Amino acid sequence: MQYIEPIQKLIAEFTKLPGVGVKTATRYAYSIINMDEADALSFSQTIQEVKQNVHYCKVCGNYTDKEVCEICESRDKSVICVVKEPKDVIAFEKLKDFKGVYHILHGTINPLMGIGANDIRIKELLARLDGVSEVIMATNSDVEGEATAMYIARLVKPLGIKVTRLAHGIPIGSDIEYADETTLSRALLDRREM
Amino acid sequence: MQYIEPIQKLIAEFTKLPGVGVKTATRYAYSIINMDEADALSFSQTIQEVKQNVHYCKVCGNYTDKEVCEICESRDKSVICVVKEPKDVIAFEKLKDFKGVYHILHGTINPLMGIGANDIRIKELLARLDGVSEVIMATNSDVEGEATAMYIARLVKPLGIKVTRLAHGIPIGSDIEYADETTLSRALLDRREM
Repeated sequence: MQYIEPIQKLIAEFTKLPGVGVKTATRYAYSIINMDEADALSFSQTIQEVKQNVHYCKVCGNYTDKEVCEICESRDKSVICVVKEPKDVIAFEKLKDFKGVYHILHGTINPLMGIGANDIRIKELLARLDGVSEVIMATNSDVEGEATAMYIARLVKPLGIKVTRLAHGIPIGSDIEYADETTLSRALLDRREM
Repeated sequence: MQYIEPIQKLIAEFTKLPGVGVKTATRYAYSIINMDEADALSFSQTIQEVKQNVHYCKVCGNYTDKEVCEICESRDKSVICVVKEPKDVIAFEKLKDFKGVYHILHGTINPLMGIGANDIRIKELLARLDGVSEVIMATNSDVEGEATAMYIARLVKPLGIKVTRLAHGIPIGSDIEYADETTLSRALLDRREM
């Protein structure tokens, strides 16, 4: 052990962050040591504040520091966009196109990992369908995302609610030449009249 | 602003770490949010502990949580290895070869940056030369490091203490073909009998 115990411990804490190895963690630890007392204190307190104040919105499941998040408070509740993770909401919100609300599943059905329909927030979605006219399934297009979308669609459609799925196709600006076969065949299948 | 305020604030804190931009900071912030309460608390407390407990050893200037660091307590005090930064001590300690003690200058003389001899820990070095037989100047071989080594050598040699400098030459395993001219000419100058 070349480092004294408190530094060693801080390095170990930093290696818990995603993609941070010992070398990077050491750089981070030294930058903390060289910070002003006040800066380090604010850093440390912000971590605690986030843990204390940030929780799931009781309606949509997104992160919020209120009981119900701002999006659920202020937007059109008749369209719900169902996503896997809070990060997906950020991606949609960047567009500024979508005026509806979200529902965050916090996972997708994945039998291999032991994640069933009851382990993600499907019940909570079904409980908020009153007055909803459309559910947009915006889970990823991997096997788990597709399976989850199918599963939810099968539950929601019988209630007379429109269920849609994000379009697949060739990304804008991308060459047809370089599109993978699955994407291209899907783009052909989903072709639209001009 | 797509993120709620506590998350936004945590992202801002993480961008203070060296080499961390907004994207990486966001990943780190989300990993904190997804951590156990206890893990996040321990992370936060470790940052504070380091700031509270880690300070300079009053003898050598290295980081320690004691008054005098373990190296100063336990090792041969007749040989002092003078380095620029605490990180340099780690590099030497990895060797397990050096049995002496260190002196950390916390900088090098750099007139362009307004750092003079009084701004780094030279006085403290001169104050601990009693009973010392050798001072090894292990500052970097850049202009500032060389100037600092020269400056200190000129102060220490008149006291009858041997002053040495780390050897320059071709790194082991490296090809002569690829050595830069300065290094090669230095390696030739410092050649030793076999």
